[in-house]
Amino acid sequence: MDGKAGHDLYRPRPGNHTVGHQLHPHPFPGSGRQARGGCGRVPEPPWLYPARRARLRFPQCLAYDRRLGRGQSRRHLGAYRVLGAGVMGEIMFERIALIGIGLIGSSIARDIRELGLARHVTISTRSEETLKRAEELELGTDYTVSAAEAVKDADLVIVSVPVGASESVAQQIAPHLKPGAIITDVGSTKASVIAQMAPHMPDNVHFIPGHPLAGTEKSGPDAGFAGLFRERWCIFTPLPGTDAEALEKLKDFWRALGSRVDEMDAEHHDKVLAIVSHLPHIIAYNIVGTADDLETVTESEVIKYSASGFRDFTRLAASDPTMWRDVCLHNKDAILEMLARFSEDLASLQRAIRWGEGDKLFELFSRTRAIRRSIVQAGQDVDAPDFGRHALDQKK
Amino acid sequence: MDGKAGHDLYRPRPGNHTVGHQLHPHPFPGSGRQARGGCGRVPEPPWLYPARRARLRFPQCLAYDRRLGRGQSRRHLGAYRVLGAGVMGEIMFERIALIGIGLIGSSIARDIRELGLARHVTISTRSEETLKRAEELELGTDYTVSAAEAVKDADLVIVSVPVGASESVAQQIAPHLKPGAIITDVGSTKASVIAQMAPHMPDNVHFIPGHPLAGTEKSGPDAGFAGLFRERWCIFTPLPGTDAEALEKLKDFWRALGSRVDEMDAEHHDKVLAIVSHLPHIIAYNIVGTADDLETVTESEVIKYSASGFRDFTRLAASDPTMWRDVCLHNKDAILEMLARFSEDLASLQRAIRWGEGDKLFELFSRTRAIRRSIVQAGQDVDAPDFGRHALDQKK
Repeated sequence: MDGKAGHDLYRPRPGNHTVGHQLHPHPFPGSGRQARGGCGRVPEPPWLYPARRARLRFPQCLAYDRRLGRGQSRRHLGAYRVLGAGVMGEIMFERIALIGIGLIGSSIARDIRELGLARHVTISTRSEETLKRAEELELGTDYTVSAAEAVKDADLVIVSVPVGASESVAQQIAPHLKPGAIITDVGSTKASVIAQMAPHMPDNVHFIPGHPLAGTEKSGPDAGFAGLFRERWCIFTPLPGTDAEALEKLKDFWRALGSRVDEMDAEHHDKVLAIVSHLPHIIAYNIVGTADDLETVTESEVIKYSASGFRDFTRLAASDPTMWRDVCLHNKDAILEMLARFSEDLASLQRAIRWGEGDKLFELFSRTRAIRRSIVQAGQDVDAPDFGRHALDQKK
Repeated sequence: MDGKAGHDLYRPRPGNHTVGHQLHPHPFPGSGRQARGGCGRVPEPPWLYPARRARLRFPQCLAYDRRLGRGQSRRHLGAYRVLGAGVMGEIMFERIALIGIGLIGSSIARDIRELGLARHVTISTRSEETLKRAEELELGTDYTVSAAEAVKDADLVIVSVPVGASESVAQQIAPHLKPGAIITDVGSTKASVIAQMAPHMPDNVHFIPGHPLAGTEKSGPDAGFAGLFRERWCIFTPLPGTDAEALEKLKDFWRALGSRVDEMDAEHHDKVLAIVSHLPHIIAYNIVGTADDLETVTESEVIKYSASGFRDFTRLAASDPTMWRDVCLHNKDAILEMLARFSEDLASLQRAIRWGEGDKLFELFSRTRAIRRSIVQAGQDVDAPDFGRHALDQKK
């Protein structure tokens, strides 16, 4: 790894408030990167300067305390420290380029920063306004509206844009990629992303599609947070002939973010995600739309009484519209198949209600309960009733 | 109010560790209620004996500390105290009978106990085992498997059973109701409950159907907790000619539990609930069933990757099967109408996906986002991303 040489020197040590043996007094040796694209770089960003970071950020709890938001208890700290223990401060890539800085991109940026995984992080997004915000949040070291500029010299490029924009990004970055670089993405559909990006990738880079199964209903650079990927799965759908070492290096990066990693082919990924993610979002959008259209029940009633079930759906239905439009358009076949199955089952359930088939209803309603238990046991959801929302409700 | 006479004496006073002026040294004067139905009563239940309660339970935070579960922070206390401030210790009913002691019944019982709203609480449930558990949890003062026994002398009777059992309960209790008593329920359907119960009610009692819009996916007496109804709506669907004073007294009881109260006719209630509660539950049950049936995606994959959306639905789909079977059977018409609208909308959405109508998808996905915002603004859900689940996730 490029960063290994400086490994011992740049690793922040908890409790070590003086770092007196810097071989590189300036953390960006030879950086002539001023004014890339539309925005300039921040000279000596304090968060990547190890000496200053050691002084400013340790003891670690300062950083984590700041991050504790509503509903997060201090016990949070312990778990996160365990995550960081093995990798904290290990520079895994000399330069990482993040193309797109929304919820996912900005969470990755925060993790890289907290964990010290790269020496330089170039942030690129088309919107000047968003780029400015990313800079205010100190999410990277360099900022540019040009994806082409951003990928120069980057050892790892992470594309975090709505899947419909993948081809355009691939075309822009392809001629500028550093030989040997790893190019990955975070898109929710994989066959379509491969079809859009792979043809443009030069032979001397490693293009490895990925998908971290994590997120919230919020979007934009302010919505991200460190730890988003912790205990969540990141699925890779490598193409045949993918370099094993590059794949392992990319997996290590995601493991450092706390993720569990998995591998499957793109078609299977798209089917699995159609049922566990795409269908639930589409159904949520649909039911909220149906409620919104009712004339016999007013919108204010729908809102007032939403705690009796409806509100759960509004969370998914508040997700980023652009992202989900693209998912629908780019995983069409798998989604249509799942929708057909869902509708078939719903028609059957509807018939059971119409004909008063209590046993049939009871059987289905009991079976689904077991699945919830398995999810909680697998550590994929909290066991607290109502997602633990009650505790937060009380604080309003 | 019956309890007003003893009001000043029995009101627990925070911080008052010695209660030296008891007029009634025994809190159940003249109680000859041993061995009601299948189970006996607990002699001198400590939680209703004011002197002992004052000694054992104050300072109040002891009680609340015990109740703080996972994901509940200490800040919870402040809010709950505010709730209790106006009503703490005011005995509103001399005796309350709770028929059914599941999630809702046991939460009511806990609130009555915490807030000191009744001198005696008789708990009744058909199952010996559940009754025993209620007694172990000290949810009442008297316990019986006979609903008929339970309502004797009760000034307020709260029926908290699956709606399909309403008629049977009404038949059992009707001949034994105390003249002037208020009889209410908590059923999720109202027209059906009225049809089942009203014909059996004697003229000298006040039958006032109600529905607190609160709950979690858990069930049984262990699942309940004090504060469940706080900031939640309780809807009453009084029959024509209902006594205004009785209705107000019942509303006051629910307000004491922290609820906001509302009134509408039963048919409108059933339509509103069909969209805000029944349809979401049915859709959740259905989607979990669809996922469970898939042969191309394994169940273990559905569980592993559930955090990408699916897990949200599994919570509602883990709700009590008996309760939801009964809701489906007893609000059939309104549910079938909502299902028809939902399916119509879904067919249209499906078509938009098939034909790649991105603008139409984007329009719907944007519109639904606004509804989420309104719900959060109305205080009916938390604003924390992912229901604040992230904080709890970290503690596992």
